[in-house]
Amino acid sequence: MEIIQDLKVMPHWADTQRLAGRTIALVPTMGFFHSGHIDLMNHGREMADRVVVSLFVNPLQFGAGEDFEKYPRDFERDRQLAEEAGVDVLFIPRHEDLYPKDYQTYISVERVTQGLCGASRPGHFRGVATIVCKLFQLVKPHKAIFGLKDYQQVITIKQMVLDLNMDVEVIGRPTVREADGLALSSRNVYLSAEDRKAALSLFESLTVAQDRCRQGEWEAGSILAEATRILTRHPGNRIDYAKIVDPHTLKDLETINPRGILVLAVRVGQTRLIDNGLLEVN
Amino acid sequence: MEIIQDLKVMPHWADTQRLAGRTIALVPTMGFFHSGHIDLMNHGREMADRVVVSLFVNPLQFGAGEDFEKYPRDFERDRQLAEEAGVDVLFIPRHEDLYPKDYQTYISVERVTQGLCGASRPGHFRGVATIVCKLFQLVKPHKAIFGLKDYQQVITIKQMVLDLNMDVEVIGRPTVREADGLALSSRNVYLSAEDRKAALSLFESLTVAQDRCRQGEWEAGSILAEATRILTRHPGNRIDYAKIVDPHTLKDLETINPRGILVLAVRVGQTRLIDNGLLEVN
Repeated sequence: MEIIQDLKVMPHWADTQRLAGRTIALVPTMGFFHSGHIDLMNHGREMADRVVVSLFVNPLQFGAGEDFEKYPRDFERDRQLAEEAGVDVLFIPRHEDLYPKDYQTYISVERVTQGLCGASRPGHFRGVATIVCKLFQLVKPHKAIFGLKDYQQVITIKQMVLDLNMDVEVIGRPTVREADGLALSSRNVYLSAEDRKAALSLFESLTVAQDRCRQGEWEAGSILAEATRILTRHPGNRIDYAKIVDPHTLKDLETINPRGILVLAVRVGQTRLIDNGLLEVN
Repeated sequence: MEIIQDLKVMPHWADTQRLAGRTIALVPTMGFFHSGHIDLMNHGREMADRVVVSLFVNPLQFGAGEDFEKYPRDFERDRQLAEEAGVDVLFIPRHEDLYPKDYQTYISVERVTQGLCGASRPGHFRGVATIVCKLFQLVKPHKAIFGLKDYQQVITIKQMVLDLNMDVEVIGRPTVREADGLALSSRNVYLSAEDRKAALSLFESLTVAQDRCRQGEWEAGSILAEATRILTRHPGNRIDYAKIVDPHTLKDLETINPRGILVLAVRVGQTRLIDNGLLEVN
């Protein structure tokens, strides 16, 4: 596995691959890999001739008071896991190269970032869109692979790619979960033993909602009431949002016909967790 | 010369050229070609194996009450001139393909677009940055060539390319002028015979400023006073701005040491004209 840090070397590597007729898959990450990341890398290997994993904790997508400083990092472990996953290039750009002193360019995707995490985390998706655009210009991938746990992020990036005519296929991969259903997240390391139990209520509410829907319930209000009941059974949980939205526009749905996404953001103790599940009415 | 309209065909053409090891130069235009455009095309031919000229009157860079509707258009003449200039592809995307109904992504370059035309034309450079990014993604050029008459536009695009790590070399070409000094512009067709004479005062004030500077004057205020005097000799002229700025940051200069740009925007009758000239103190 090659490690590339230099911003001139990365596009040059990409040009060489493309000239040789090889396809490139990019997996953009903030590191601290778990099985969800490994699944994205494995999928990249299946989808393309070469896999690049970028590792960069992007300050632009963290708000004031968020966890940029304490976001978990373990480069040596990440390097090993990427190598074992058969990654071709681990791209680890330097902060001062990506955001030099005179930096001043930002990409805004307007409508799909208005609600949900966009409402709780102002500037977050501007940071996401901007860094992903930068990575696309540097790595020149044919395909880019993201986890669907960050559902609004995937929709935002797909919208940016469509609007800016980027020649990249954006692929969203299903959320990888622990045996008991907890969605894998680098932020799970923040959870205490008590939090860990309370965190299960996200998956539980998704499962119950999906069951209710499968049984023919199409009123969003009724399903949300039940999901909220489950989430708030734990006194340490505070709901940031729990909504049923259109899978493409992310607009609130009153009725599920035939599909909706239940999207959740819940503060479990000190840790903000997100999760989502597709609802389909039979 | 090939004419491409389809947004899927353009990147496919670009990939084919790149796979064959050929370099691509892009000349982005709004059409109604004059010798300035032809110079950009000729330069493209010298700089790259293939030249693409894009022709699109971009509504996103026109403000309310500006001349989007009446902006001069003559496709048949443009087609002939591009063909004669040895252009390989004339790219004429459709408005509804570039800005479909759900369009919502915008690129902002913040500091260099604050003053000058950015102050008089809110949203203008957001529109310019966004369309140029889109064209870069579609045409995948190695080099992109712009006229330096639109000086702030060139600086804005260079800043975007730097910040977003785009693998494109941005080239600014010197302004092409009429025999008497008037900078070529598609908007010159708006000028009446009377306006045409008054319009010369832009070039005249640039020339006088450059002479003063060459003779050792380094105080911006003194040079601007003289430029303003020349511009306002014609009662139909209204100055939008006349400033001496740093050639890179576009910040106001008080002293020229050793270089500055005199940038002008003047309403001549009903027509807003811009021009600029490099000032160098000996």
